[in-house]
Amino acid sequence: MSNNKLFNVAVVGATGAVGGQIIRLLSERKFPINELKLLSSARSAGQVISFGGQDIVLEEAKPESFDGVEIALFSAGGDVSRELIPHAIDRGVICIDNTSAFRMDPDTPLVVPEVNVDKINEHRGIIANPNCSTIQLVAALKPLYDRFGMSRIIVSTYQAVSGAGQNAINEMLKQSKDVIAGDDVTPAILPVSSLPVKHQIAFNAIPQIDKFTDNGFTFEEMKMINETKKIMDDESLEVTTTCVRIPVVYGHSESVYVELKSDFELDEVRELLANAPGIVLQDNPAEQLYPLATEAAGKLETFVGRVRRDLNNPRGLNMWIVSDNLLKGAAWNAVQIAEYIALEQE
Amino acid sequence: MSNNKLFNVAVVGATGAVGGQIIRLLSERKFPINELKLLSSARSAGQVISFGGQDIVLEEAKPESFDGVEIALFSAGGDVSRELIPHAIDRGVICIDNTSAFRMDPDTPLVVPEVNVDKINEHRGIIANPNCSTIQLVAALKPLYDRFGMSRIIVSTYQAVSGAGQNAINEMLKQSKDVIAGDDVTPAILPVSSLPVKHQIAFNAIPQIDKFTDNGFTFEEMKMINETKKIMDDESLEVTTTCVRIPVVYGHSESVYVELKSDFELDEVRELLANAPGIVLQDNPAEQLYPLATEAAGKLETFVGRVRRDLNNPRGLNMWIVSDNLLKGAAWNAVQIAEYIALEQE
Repeated sequence: MSNNKLFNVAVVGATGAVGGQIIRLLSERKFPINELKLLSSARSAGQVISFGGQDIVLEEAKPESFDGVEIALFSAGGDVSRELIPHAIDRGVICIDNTSAFRMDPDTPLVVPEVNVDKINEHRGIIANPNCSTIQLVAALKPLYDRFGMSRIIVSTYQAVSGAGQNAINEMLKQSKDVIAGDDVTPAILPVSSLPVKHQIAFNAIPQIDKFTDNGFTFEEMKMINETKKIMDDESLEVTTTCVRIPVVYGHSESVYVELKSDFELDEVRELLANAPGIVLQDNPAEQLYPLATEAAGKLETFVGRVRRDLNNPRGLNMWIVSDNLLKGAAWNAVQIAEYIALEQE
Repeated sequence: MSNNKLFNVAVVGATGAVGGQIIRLLSERKFPINELKLLSSARSAGQVISFGGQDIVLEEAKPESFDGVEIALFSAGGDVSRELIPHAIDRGVICIDNTSAFRMDPDTPLVVPEVNVDKINEHRGIIANPNCSTIQLVAALKPLYDRFGMSRIIVSTYQAVSGAGQNAINEMLKQSKDVIAGDDVTPAILPVSSLPVKHQIAFNAIPQIDKFTDNGFTFEEMKMINETKKIMDDESLEVTTTCVRIPVVYGHSESVYVELKSDFELDEVRELLANAPGIVLQDNPAEQLYPLATEAAGKLETFVGRVRRDLNNPRGLNMWIVSDNLLKGAAWNAVQIAEYIALEQE
């Protein structure tokens, strides 16, 4: 980015996996920063994080921390966002919230820049960053939605363990070692750290991410359903989801079936995807080219392949969509929103 | 089993993963055996395998090997089945073939006993055992198909590496160790050993099982589509599949969406599944109970959970179906067919 105005920026949740990626991206993208505040829990305050060659001491996040701040990126959990964002707004801060706290609030724009960047301008102090599995889905489907119309989405996810935090990654790697060595495994974190029953994630597939709601879907599945409709701005869009945790470190994969509202040629679908912002088409069966979590890890784009027509329904389309859940699925989408805000205020 | 007649049985492919499970099941189930021949490639001939306390020397599988044999179970690859089964039939052998060689032959019954056991009686020397991912799908869906009718199935699979053989398991475990140790990984087997491009399976999800067909689906996906229609005996049934290999050793998981032809109550769906032969309902969100590959491994049943209604389509139903791909998905289904044949000839 290049503009003249410099901003006072705060990152809340600076020690978390997403917070760390946000800090790295702000530096790499040369975000126009005047002063950067790194905020954390009281426990982590005092730690030092390097930013562009400069050492920054973590401060405990409090209402007063936001004095003088212009843009704040929150990824310290829903409770912290619910508590601190109102104080930040009172101080005139524009808050980009990576938690689910305000996503479904009708007054809060829920933004994936490739899909609905214009909604940012409607904010009243908060712009919500969607759930990781939702972001890559809508980013890939938007060009097809716009061109052909879309009536229905049926998704099954293959989600990385990093979505549950560094402790979950550590648990998976430790379990993997133990299973290979023939040792017993005692799961302690996944699928949901706050729930009583734990399951082995190493060499397994767990069809539970987040708690269950009363209708038999999990909160993760309901987030995908509700957020997709909100971001696409289409309550008539039918969305069904099954969210599954698999033993992958970084990168969510999604098996996606969509029904379009008009006839399509596969070549045009591929061309639309290849030319869409933030999307990389990787679709060549002859060369065994398709998106893979291990290759999407560390990249900012969303990767799409296995594009093929349903053999029964000529308006049905299958796809495989992969993206780094901590980057486009979280930190990068948030920084993209921050960049847009900075450009608008230039 | 208990009956009076004893059979001369041959197992072709005795050294393979599925062959080994067939031998174990014949012993555990006390299959009424007079003489057991264990047949293999010339390379493995001479090895000794223990069966019920008896040592049996492997013989090279040749046309003459089938002299005097009454029932033969084949799992040594399609080429071996295509070559030897005609010779076995000439000798009056009833062949249960675990390969894809004859599955779609209109004169060959394709049997999952829970679904279409009566088809066994129509055989002309061969009964085909379906593909692993198909078997657990139709076993679980049949009671719902019969009660409510079914117009459509959309499946995404989470398939275990054992489906690609012991070498693939070894590759995955070795890669897992290397990744954890921070060492480089050089994939050599998966996704398809005979194709040039290899991908890492450790901590990854590979959306390719078997080679690609011209329509963009893989052979694995087409097998599921075609075999499901044949077993359900319903060409109008619409089936869409996405087959994905994940880092699991034993047990295929499937995220399944079906559209039923009539209204249903979820309680009745659960009751039908709970009472269906070969099916175990594991469906209690409050206790985080749902099928898991690690728990289905080593078991003969097909496990079903995450049963819930589509929020948009009142006749749409989501499910999670898991079974051991080497057992119900291969060896056990074949031995079930053999048991049926033995009982009929008692």
